Amino acid sequence: MDCTIRSVSTLDWEQARQLVIDVVKELQRPSGVESLALEQAHGRVLAEDVHADRDYPALRRSLRDGFAVQARSLPGVLGVRGEVRAGEMQQSPLQEGEALEIMTGAPVPDEADAVVMVEHVTRIEGPHGTIQVKIDRAVKAGEWINERGSEAAQGSLLVAKGTRLDAGHISALAMVGKTSVPVHLQPRVAILATGDEIVSVAAEPAAHQIRNSNSFMLAALVSAVGGRPELLPVAPDTRDELRPGLQRGLTCDMLLVSGGVSAGRYDLVKPTLRELGTHFHFEKVRIQPGGPCAFGSRGSTPVFGLPGNPGSSYVTFQLFAQPALELLGGQSECLLPLLTARFAAPFKHRPGLTRFLPAKLSADGQHLTHILWQGSSDVPGLARANAFLVADDYRESWAIGDTIRVMRKL
Amino acid sequence: MDCTIRSVSTLDWEQARQLVIDVVKELQRPSGVESLALEQAHGRVLAEDVHADRDYPALRRSLRDGFAVQARSLPGVLGVRGEVRAGEMQQSPLQEGEALEIMTGAPVPDEADAVVMVEHVTRIEGPHGTIQVKIDRAVKAGEWINERGSEAAQGSLLVAKGTRLDAGHISALAMVGKTSVPVHLQPRVAILATGDEIVSVAAEPAAHQIRNSNSFMLAALVSAVGGRPELLPVAPDTRDELRPGLQRGLTCDMLLVSGGVSAGRYDLVKPTLRELGTHFHFEKVRIQPGGPCAFGSRGSTPVFGLPGNPGSSYVTFQLFAQPALELLGGQSECLLPLLTARFAAPFKHRPGLTRFLPAKLSADGQHLTHILWQGSSDVPGLARANAFLVADDYRESWAIGDTIRVMRKL
Repeated sequence: MDCTIRSVSTLDWEQARQLVIDVVKELQRPSGVESLALEQAHGRVLAEDVHADRDYPALRRSLRDGFAVQARSLPGVLGVRGEVRAGEMQQSPLQEGEALEIMTGAPVPDEADAVVMVEHVTRIEGPHGTIQVKIDRAVKAGEWINERGSEAAQGSLLVAKGTRLDAGHISALAMVGKTSVPVHLQPRVAILATGDEIVSVAAEPAAHQIRNSNSFMLAALVSAVGGRPELLPVAPDTRDELRPGLQRGLTCDMLLVSGGVSAGRYDLVKPTLRELGTHFHFEKVRIQPGGPCAFGSRGSTPVFGLPGNPGSSYVTFQLFAQPALELLGGQSECLLPLLTARFAAPFKHRPGLTRFLPAKLSADGQHLTHILWQGSSDVPGLARANAFLVADDYRESWAIGDTIRVMRKL
Repeated sequence: MDCTIRSVSTLDWEQARQLVIDVVKELQRPSGVESLALEQAHGRVLAEDVHADRDYPALRRSLRDGFAVQARSLPGVLGVRGEVRAGEMQQSPLQEGEALEIMTGAPVPDEADAVVMVEHVTRIEGPHGTIQVKIDRAVKAGEWINERGSEAAQGSLLVAKGTRLDAGHISALAMVGKTSVPVHLQPRVAILATGDEIVSVAAEPAAHQIRNSNSFMLAALVSAVGGRPELLPVAPDTRDELRPGLQRGLTCDMLLVSGGVSAGRYDLVKPTLRELGTHFHFEKVRIQPGGPCAFGSRGSTPVFGLPGNPGSSYVTFQLFAQPALELLGGQSECLLPLLTARFAAPFKHRPGLTRFLPAKLSADGQHLTHILWQGSSDVPGLARANAFLVADDYRESWAIGDTIRVMRKL
């Protein structure tokens, strides 16, 4: 990986994202591990492989309520030997001409090779008060039987280390008896908003000032990706006032700075970070909003300079800072699933840059409308959106019904 | 809404989901409110409308680093009067023939009606050591100016009550100075797994037994949707042993029961719930897995009987229990965005039922592969999936490249 060459040109967002992933993977930070009770582990990143403790299922189980039979006896009339329920022990082998009433999840007896659903069976009275079942259809061997080990063989990998645990993984861990789970520690992420115009949320801003919405927004994004946000005091646009905040931020596992990264004369974040030993891997991406996004590292600490307008910070966090944070948190794979929806209203943009613009998905996700947006400073517009549309750089217009990729809002 | 008629027929999943939404909306439970610090409010449901405390922006702001000008003077040469930065007060009105150097976010002076980006300007020396800028292009009035109130007028609605707060909403709340936020209390959701075959996660199951993976899975799902899970002890399949658990569960804001809702002889959950006063609104849905899913209510408490196989419980939770929980938690709108991806491998199913089957989305979300699955009891398969594909009931096969709707795993 030759960072030097790539850093001088302007990258498209996929290249920039891949560069973040490549660089952070090579930082090789030691990641601490803690043990959590299973009920606390949802959303955390598993720190060791988990294997099947036995075959799953552990014996042949019925997939339906019905009758265990020998397929070769059907169609025909079979004598009912009794019944077996889920939670009961496996019964002795089925004999020729016999059926065993069986409930979903119950063990299938040896010599039975199929289950006939109760809906396809007629109960009739047999000789001497016995019960028989009349089955008019042929069945295939194996039907409605869950073979031993068919879901997982003993010892096979169930959930790999580096997996962020969703409810399905939690189910698998419970299945194999994991009452406690080793997970990676959550990375501490410093958040430093910069800008002379920014006052605290509790303050009454003058007309030329704005409250610090970015720090809280970024803290929410960090939490959503499994990090522990640490909000630093807002830093004004001078090197002397920036330096202590940046220094403090660099002691965390990752540093997010918002603002001060454009080409303007008072954009001092990058020069000051350089003075502190940060090497930048890219300083510009061919997207809007968020074009001046910068990514660097100092030692093993990834550093992001996110453009200060909230729309830019939001988009560049999801595209670039999120995968870095996921990797720092021990996650092995970074997903950014951009599925597609259809425009419910016509949409145009100026080609040349890929744009991530606030949009509203319908409740069923099938239709998308772009939000009227004043640009990346427009927080009210951001709050009306539930997604970002991804307008490709090579295309100018979309008609109603045209498909478009969508980035779900974190 | 005539629940009686609809409950006797088998609903498709959209009808069933809508019925859940209609019924729960009419339960009109009193929902408590608590006040949280802004940094705690992410993911919670806002309990009051939040309006703009002033115009946004509060004055005309520059959207770029450049020069504030009068559009009618261009192209031409203008004298540079000085500069204004973000965080500085608005300067006196621009005079004819003047330009004011301006930074992104800084206040635009009166009488200026456009900003020219710094990239399109040549600095030249003027008479008597003054600085001038030469601008070779015409500009449109309004260019790169964010007009006062264009994002939001004072008093306009920014975030509506009933909104689950994402990072964009948090940004808007910070912008208007909300240091604390009224949010709805999180509903308490009782979780009761039933079945004679189920032993605790800490136990060593015999071959015919399985550990209780459902309670932990459902707890994770409940947490993900903003509820507070309360796990009840596993209940065996007898009315006497079911009743106390169900009674206790009915004292919560919502009750989830897994297992015991099929047509089998030992499926006693619904009869016992009926004895306790539960009215069922539907007892079957035309889907797989999860067809025997039942939805009822007792008083103002929604009750779900989820089929006990983990795949069935998972799917029916997302389709039916999730919207109920969202509404109980004060959320005003229930989203289920089923966006589309393309098959990376051919796929077939038996038409007649809509199937929600475990699938794997590629990292970029463009491609989908179905997971080889033994059926709804197959937890390892569920753990390999990161999504469910939605196989429509009227279609049999999909080729590589065909599109399909996708339900993201919670």
